[in-house]
Amino acid sequence: MKLLYPTTLTLNPAQIAGFPTLTLHPYDAKAATLPSDLLDAEILITWANSAANLSFAAANLPQLRWIQSLAAGPNDVLAAGFDTSRVQITTGSGLHDRTVAEHALGLLLTAARRFHEMRDAQLQGKWPGHLGGPQPDREPGSFRTLRDARVLVWGFGNIAQCLTPHMVALGATVQGVARRAGVRAGVEVFGEDKLPELLPDTDALVMILPGDASTRHALNKERLGMLPKHAWVVNVGRGSSVDEDALFEALEKGEIGGAALDVFEKEPLPEGDKLYKAKNLVLSPHAAGGRPQGAEELIVDNLRRFLAGQDLRNSV
Amino acid sequence: MKLLYPTTLTLNPAQIAGFPTLTLHPYDAKAATLPSDLLDAEILITWANSAANLSFAAANLPQLRWIQSLAAGPNDVLAAGFDTSRVQITTGSGLHDRTVAEHALGLLLTAARRFHEMRDAQLQGKWPGHLGGPQPDREPGSFRTLRDARVLVWGFGNIAQCLTPHMVALGATVQGVARRAGVRAGVEVFGEDKLPELLPDTDALVMILPGDASTRHALNKERLGMLPKHAWVVNVGRGSSVDEDALFEALEKGEIGGAALDVFEKEPLPEGDKLYKAKNLVLSPHAAGGRPQGAEELIVDNLRRFLAGQDLRNSV
Ligand SMILES: NC(=O)c1ccc[n+]([C@@H]2O[C@H](COP(=O)([O-])OP(=O)(O)OC[C@H]3O[C@@H](n4cnc5c(N)ncnc54)[C@H](OP(=O)(O)O)[C@@H]3O)[C@@H](O)[C@H]2O)c1
Ligand SMILES: NC(=O)c1ccc[n+]([C@@H]2O[C@H](COP(=O)([O-])OP(=O)(O)OC[C@H]3O[C@@H](n4cnc5c(N)ncnc54)[C@H](OP(=O)(O)O)[C@@H]3O)[C@@H](O)[C@H]2O)c1
Repeated sequence: MKLLYPTTLTLNPAQIAGFPTLTLHPYDAKAATLPSDLLDAEILITWANSAANLSFAAANLPQLRWIQSLAAGPNDVLAAGFDTSRVQITTGSGLHDRTVAEHALGLLLTAARRFHEMRDAQLQGKWPGHLGGPQPDREPGSFRTLRDARVLVWGFGNIAQCLTPHMVALGATVQGVARRAGVRAGVEVFGEDKLPELLPDTDALVMILPGDASTRHALNKERLGMLPKHAWVVNVGRGSSVDEDALFEALEKGEIGGAALDVFEKEPLPEGDKLYKAKNLVLSPHAAGGRPQGAEELIVDNLRRFLAGQDLRNSV
Repeated sequence: MKLLYPTTLTLNPAQIAGFPTLTLHPYDAKAATLPSDLLDAEILITWANSAANLSFAAANLPQLRWIQSLAAGPNDVLAAGFDTSRVQITTGSGLHDRTVAEHALGLLLTAARRFHEMRDAQLQGKWPGHLGGPQPDREPGSFRTLRDARVLVWGFGNIAQCLTPHMVALGATVQGVARRAGVRAGVEVFGEDKLPELLPDTDALVMILPGDASTRHALNKERLGMLPKHAWVVNVGRGSSVDEDALFEALEKGEIGGAALDVFEKEPLPEGDKLYKAKNLVLSPHAAGGRPQGAEELIVDNLRRFLAGQDLRNSV
């Protein structure tokens, strides 16, 4: 049985080896085709494949039974035209938690510590003295540290639960918003109906929502208006969950403190888009994830399940 | 007995009150003089005082017996000419650990995640696509995440011990360098004689050394040369511990990955200084600390000791 793994990331084949019925074959996920001696593959691992490569695979792997994507949201695979009556698809959900959490923490600290403003001054050869030296502390209506900051995480899934302990360790008070209310991982999680009470008491709102129809423009003009003037918005989920026009207006009018966005409604953010120059906006180019961690463990676990005829993890 | 506390930061007098023999009096630490009805004070709390204010106090508080500075290094108080035969001085050491640790963590994440490069692109209205999307992982010879990063903390005192758990939680392997070797707070700490073995295996070197004669230019040309080409230097201790000319050369020649500096040999860094434009240099304007945390607890604890005739904490 042939398993094809992509060379678009550094997998360690030794960690996947040791299945007597299996042979492992690297392939170039950017190439428009696959070599003819690999076309009898039954298992395909995908990561950052070109669209051409995926549609070639969809049309030319007659024995394919399972695709393990390493992406959290394998939209590319789903769009490629595989025959899902015989090919099952599993996602890389969970492989990106730590790396997205790290990035989100970095964006929060950038916002609190104003690293972007320091950079602007540095590029002009100026010492940003107003940001250093003796500084105001415990100013009501400010977000200058995670210590004692009230952080609301909207979308309290895997990534949020990975991020939370880091913020708590720095002294933040964390609450969550999700579909199901209740205490989760030691954090009080509310339904969206509680947003009118929660948003006015928020110093930093971290959005980690998926990009489906139910979350479209979840953060709209009305809800932005409920945030205090000093509050920052950090988004590492999906751009579609924020109404960018309403956000731009809130930023320009100083109705919120700022926004650090890793995701946008259109990516790359088109040249000339007004968000590039929006007041107190920090831009990150969908860089939070993009590096699956522990892919071999997921692959091996799912291989054992596959060979045993069991259900796979992360099935779509 | 009169205690004077400064209005340069928001202290909560209620947390200091309750000593029957004591009256609490706010004063303006920026003013050139003190009001005449406060000149019989016995205790003075200082924070960000003007030099004039301190020399006025040194000359005009005949009953003064104790100064509690809230700065980690109270150079200003020491230089003001107080009669130390009758006035004892205590520092704010420990009040800055968490805030400096938070800032250091932010600088490390800025370095790893390249937030400064993203900012440069944003200011030009450009999407920094090379920093986003699918990214290389586990590249040997790179510092792109704290996960599995080898961090060496030079100066393993209070701040370092506060910073370490945050880095470990993100997956870093942390070692320390200090005067005394041995395991401290669960971290292996080495003497400076081990630097030739430690530096070549370092992805990020965090300097948290005090600024005395023993640490002057501790990071010099020779030791910079021992770091791998991708290694970042973060300094939140004192600028004098780094030879800035040698650092500039290492940066410009690409001999190290970059440097994120909160402290400089001269502060503010003079206009036109070559460091402003040095390659891969991230500048922060001595902004790590500057916000004493928990000052009331230290003051109250030392007040009890003072009234009981015991030794004070943080005596110089
Ligand atoms: N920036 C990047 O590079 C990057 C990388 C990876 C992933 N992501 C994005 O991050 C998203 C979250 O990832 P995850 O692994 O944490 O997902 P997850 O574990 O599925 O968590 C999603 C969370 O969102 C909540 N949610 C979903 N729809 C909602 C709605 N309509 N209203 C309120 N809450 C809603 C869920 O609520 P319940 O818990 O109540 O179901 C859950 O708490 C992904 O979908 C992906 O789009 C971004
Ligand atoms: N950027 C900012 O805003 C800011 C704010 C506050 C403080 N600081 C700076 O940070 C420094 C460190 O603060 P801290 O509270 O962590 O101090 P600390 O607890 O006194 O620790 C100092 C550490 O440096 C080590 N050390 C001292 N001299 C050394 C030498 N010659 N060679 C090697 N190691 C040496 C000490 O070694 P041993 O443990 O073996 O004695 C100790 O581990 C302060 O002195 C201050 O200058 C900066």
